[in-house]
Amino acid sequence: MIKAAILGFGVVGCGVYEVLKQNSSQIKTKCEAGIEIKYILDIRKFPGAEYEDKVTDDFAVIENDPEIKIVIETIGGAGAAYDFTRRALERGKHVVTSNKELVATHGYELLSLAEEKNVNYLFEASVGGGIPIIRPIIQCLSANEITEIIGILNGTTNYILTMMINAGMSFEQALELAKSNGYAERNPASDIEGVDAGRKIAILASLASGHHIYPEQVVCEGIMEITLDDVRYAAEAGMVIKLLGRYKKLDGGKICVYVAPHLIGQESMLSGVSGVFNGIIVRGNAVGEVMFYGRGAGDMPTASAVVADVIDAARHIDKTKNKRLWGEGGAFTQDSKVLRQRYYIRAEGAANPAGEPSDAERLFGRLEVISGGTGGMSVFITEEMDGCEFEKALDEYKKSAMVLSCMRVLG
Amino acid sequence: MIKAAILGFGVVGCGVYEVLKQNSSQIKTKCEAGIEIKYILDIRKFPGAEYEDKVTDDFAVIENDPEIKIVIETIGGAGAAYDFTRRALERGKHVVTSNKELVATHGYELLSLAEEKNVNYLFEASVGGGIPIIRPIIQCLSANEITEIIGILNGTTNYILTMMINAGMSFEQALELAKSNGYAERNPASDIEGVDAGRKIAILASLASGHHIYPEQVVCEGIMEITLDDVRYAAEAGMVIKLLGRYKKLDGGKICVYVAPHLIGQESMLSGVSGVFNGIIVRGNAVGEVMFYGRGAGDMPTASAVVADVIDAARHIDKTKNKRLWGEGGAFTQDSKVLRQRYYIRAEGAANPAGEPSDAERLFGRLEVISGGTGGMSVFITEEMDGCEFEKALDEYKKSAMVLSCMRVLG
Repeated sequence: MIKAAILGFGVVGCGVYEVLKQNSSQIKTKCEAGIEIKYILDIRKFPGAEYEDKVTDDFAVIENDPEIKIVIETIGGAGAAYDFTRRALERGKHVVTSNKELVATHGYELLSLAEEKNVNYLFEASVGGGIPIIRPIIQCLSANEITEIIGILNGTTNYILTMMINAGMSFEQALELAKSNGYAERNPASDIEGVDAGRKIAILASLASGHHIYPEQVVCEGIMEITLDDVRYAAEAGMVIKLLGRYKKLDGGKICVYVAPHLIGQESMLSGVSGVFNGIIVRGNAVGEVMFYGRGAGDMPTASAVVADVIDAARHIDKTKNKRLWGEGGAFTQDSKVLRQRYYIRAEGAANPAGEPSDAERLFGRLEVISGGTGGMSVFITEEMDGCEFEKALDEYKKSAMVLSCMRVLG
Repeated sequence: MIKAAILGFGVVGCGVYEVLKQNSSQIKTKCEAGIEIKYILDIRKFPGAEYEDKVTDDFAVIENDPEIKIVIETIGGAGAAYDFTRRALERGKHVVTSNKELVATHGYELLSLAEEKNVNYLFEASVGGGIPIIRPIIQCLSANEITEIIGILNGTTNYILTMMINAGMSFEQALELAKSNGYAERNPASDIEGVDAGRKIAILASLASGHHIYPEQVVCEGIMEITLDDVRYAAEAGMVIKLLGRYKKLDGGKICVYVAPHLIGQESMLSGVSGVFNGIIVRGNAVGEVMFYGRGAGDMPTASAVVADVIDAARHIDKTKNKRLWGEGGAFTQDSKVLRQRYYIRAEGAANPAGEPSDAERLFGRLEVISGGTGGMSVFITEEMDGCEFEKALDEYKKSAMVLSCMRVLG
């Protein structure tokens, strides 16, 4: 039996315990030695639970027990989790985590430490919950140069947007429903502001580029400003609004990494990704486009990914499986303004004398008009332009019109 | 440099050579030793090509060269490919293949031989072309009991069906177009009869069940009988017709594996998988539903998967990476008639006296009527029933109506 410890017995930690128990015979066929949870680190006591005697509130017990080969960190955040992960790796224990914040913030350092100590630091569950994405990028797409990653990476915001699109709810109503269904936390800021998606695309960007991309290097826009009007006009153009994290490799080696809401057409597979599901498109120069889809959060899906990593660590208990996955961070990113794309604009009061070309046409090129000025409202999609051109044109346009919203259009 | 040989320099073999060349610096970061193609086995000579001096028509040269550590089999079929694969494994060489027929037919034997010789037999490219699917099932979903796999596994038939659905072409027209675009072979039988999809679902079923499932155990229905009428009636019901390979685990441990066209609703992610793309849904008891999507064929996508396996073999050159992935075959499958599902029926001439319940209602339960008897045509979807009940009812129904087509409905 290979002995492991779970740090933090919340939703994910508890799911890990459940999956290890429920699928133990299945897991035995993959890892003959078997995996046993010897400790659960938590400040709570869980009196009467079957695992009561495994619970400890002292990490030193786990750290100093040479029997513990694998530490499963499901605490979250970059505080205690960071400290415990470092200490576990220092002691030559493999660490498996679902902690996107920690990987995004300290991944390079922790991967380097793991390499030095000849153990694994595995984090499949940190992006996309149960969806296989980290390992497929590392291994299955290893023959490719990854040129682009675009993903719906946050289930909470996708649920909110889906409720706005399908049920005509306002942002506030949909957020309340998400909270009452357990899909949003009481303080939903990191989800709805795009920060959570930002950490995930930072991890994927690090994998794809080979350099640590820090969360600070990812400009994140959230979905708080999106109104039902925008959702309806998007539908009139045959599109849906989705919050996307995007990694794009530029000519010359720099990269763009950002999070922002986009209008996307129904020909994109991402448009069908609804509710709490996540979908991630990866483009490689040999494989073309591949997509991964599934539940991006939840106890059991996330635990599925964590336990897969635990099995992997157990099967390579005496050797590091991966080289350090990416190198040091640095000035590798460029502002996403360099990307050429179309933009959606909704504005009021830009009336033109009959027969005159509108300001919008003059500034934004050939327009795809969604709503042509009835009631003084102009809703349209611009020509493809880079972010600087767009901002300049937008500033000019604002002199004659009140811009109510603008958003990127994908493709 | 790790030396390898490509067997068969057709579309895939050539793609492998290209990807290794084009992405060599990328590949170097994954496999420091580097990979060099020393031989290309083909009966052709390729005079003037840069690889001319690597070409040989004698497998013994490759077999007897101790420098060759990896053999890349892209011949296809279960003839010479089988012989060469056995001989390469016998000599302790790793073998990487894109050959679904060989894996589906002799997988157990070849995996056992590889295990015995302490080398790898890798076949990521055999299912779904460049889509990561084999390794994600083996590794990323290893904590799950796989309960179901449903996939669009054949790009040729999906292209034909897409042309029927989107462009209103007949089956014959769409097939001709597929041929002229290089998506269908001159003899398209193995695609359109479902045999190719059958081999792929057999491989996935072997992985999921842990027992070798032979192609003969997979009942395959093709798409030759599907008419534009069916496509249009499906659309009226908000559905599309797709050729699906399906693996389903039954209570009691037996499994169903089959290939058949199905009507699927637009809420299924598979309904958005168009053209030559493949999409594969995997259901696990922890992860729920995940889907993998991408180009299921073509030189570069398939080569992407082959080269990923080559890199993997190169990185584990002195050790077997996987245990034998499945055990011996046997009587593990059950007829798919045991599955309860709904059925689509299109029939002529089952008129009923006004007010009387129709024969169809009496036999098939509460119907979802698509076309209600105008012009003597009855088109409807039955209640959920198992295959035996359905066949009995269908025989009875045929006494009063001429059944023009019937098909399974997914979900």
